[in-house]
Amino acid sequence: MKIGWIGTGVMGFPMAGHIRDAGHNLYLYSRTQKKAEGLMARGGRWCISPAEVALNAEVVFTIVGNPRDVEEVYLGKGGLVSAGCRCRTVVDMTTSSPKLAQTIAEAASREGIDSLDAPVSGGDIGARDASLSIMVGGDRGAFERVLPLLHLMGKEIAHMGGPGTGQHTKICNQILIAGTIIGVCESLLYASRLGLDEQSVLDIVGNGAGSSWLVRNLGPMIARGDYTPTFFVEHFIKDMGIALEEAAACDLSLPGLSLVRQLYIAVKAQGHGRLGTQALMLALRKLNGMQ
Amino acid sequence: MKIGWIGTGVMGFPMAGHIRDAGHNLYLYSRTQKKAEGLMARGGRWCISPAEVALNAEVVFTIVGNPRDVEEVYLGKGGLVSAGCRCRTVVDMTTSSPKLAQTIAEAASREGIDSLDAPVSGGDIGARDASLSIMVGGDRGAFERVLPLLHLMGKEIAHMGGPGTGQHTKICNQILIAGTIIGVCESLLYASRLGLDEQSVLDIVGNGAGSSWLVRNLGPMIARGDYTPTFFVEHFIKDMGIALEEAAACDLSLPGLSLVRQLYIAVKAQGHGRLGTQALMLALRKLNGMQ
Repeated sequence: MKIGWIGTGVMGFPMAGHIRDAGHNLYLYSRTQKKAEGLMARGGRWCISPAEVALNAEVVFTIVGNPRDVEEVYLGKGGLVSAGCRCRTVVDMTTSSPKLAQTIAEAASREGIDSLDAPVSGGDIGARDASLSIMVGGDRGAFERVLPLLHLMGKEIAHMGGPGTGQHTKICNQILIAGTIIGVCESLLYASRLGLDEQSVLDIVGNGAGSSWLVRNLGPMIARGDYTPTFFVEHFIKDMGIALEEAAACDLSLPGLSLVRQLYIAVKAQGHGRLGTQALMLALRKLNGMQ
Repeated sequence: MKIGWIGTGVMGFPMAGHIRDAGHNLYLYSRTQKKAEGLMARGGRWCISPAEVALNAEVVFTIVGNPRDVEEVYLGKGGLVSAGCRCRTVVDMTTSSPKLAQTIAEAASREGIDSLDAPVSGGDIGARDASLSIMVGGDRGAFERVLPLLHLMGKEIAHMGGPGTGQHTKICNQILIAGTIIGVCESLLYASRLGLDEQSVLDIVGNGAGSSWLVRNLGPMIARGDYTPTFFVEHFIKDMGIALEEAAACDLSLPGLSLVRQLYIAVKAQGHGRLGTQALMLALRKLNGMQ
């Protein structure tokens, strides 16, 4: 199949690679052409704009930085949603705004294009292993048509409802993570202050009612002071910002999420925006006068 | 062996039962004698005070309500730690104050008794299945002597350090749970407000980076409005209170835990103190004008 791919960053690059590995033809566009070169070397064809991608491909996937980039790629000059394109289905896998997903779906529909919002969870490891969770909003028939392609990139894939519900579900995911992560960090902060061995604490509390993917994966990194990013602090701040805006838009107060985001803003203020989310620990330590 | 058991509530009763099932003789005391009758029917001998238990048994386990009860049982009139008792090792499995554990260890030491603090995690299910996690503080030799007995009640058992470190580790556990649980509740609250199917959201977000024991076990209960207690709101408020007091005592600010406890106090204020911890959802719904 002729597949368009826009956005070849840390997530998009390996995801597009899986599509290519399955034998599909890739039509590529990325803000930074250099980041697409590895895919061009494997036969991908470079396009000069999202519109040119849409002119050539039957299905186009996008995974870019933030909602503003999504809007530009879809609705801007030379954007995907333009008259006379060949493409019949577009799938945005960026974590973006549900409202924007709805706006794009309406604009696309006027051009006879089905638009799906399909954000992912699982980070760069999930992208490389094709083990992502993918939450999809939009037309059910369009979802079923692209499902075999999504299966090349993810393991758990769910259709959640109409346009925007994929993004809403991703917001649920980020809210869940925000709470879990402050529990992990404050728990280890207490252990550290009291002079307990952090890894020994993880071995026992991380295997009972407090067990989680995050305590298993980030806990040991925190215990050894490793703040290598698997997911950037600054991206998490963006995601939580979308969540709080969407919640406020429907008069929903989320005190826990709000607090966690404030603390992450402090992490960034301390110069750690490009560390991993476990760096929340650094801000909590500084808050408490610890090195 | 002659084993003393004090406290035969929802946790203590099945735990003492495992000791009895392994063929040990039980010497029993409980604030409410009626709650011990099932164990007396299986051969346990009733004692009129903790001191009488200590007079007869070689090792005494206690699991009572709160730190005040622990203090009474150990240091009160007719308490465990009294001159001339036969007992050489006492093990408090109540979730209680680390400082009290240290005080008791010192008082016990003066009578030649080893005192261990060994709070548990895993709730009534873990108590019945003998699958508890047990976090132990106190003398290493005493820990090793009672380890075979602890193995009759728990699966993961760890010696964490000197007196009080079992309680400190349990505090780490409760801090971890507090964060995780607000993530679960706010995530499902958002799903509910946005009209997503809560169980479908759990199926996808509960299997990725957001997965946890709590989202797997409490999530589906929340989705179907089931607030049956596996762990009481009012007990969790007590545990978080101990955690915040201990943290304050070493100048440690825990903003996440503090917020979660305030919300749980609201759950209790709304009359739900004897529901399960998942009832945090009820307070968050009320906060947001939802039924």
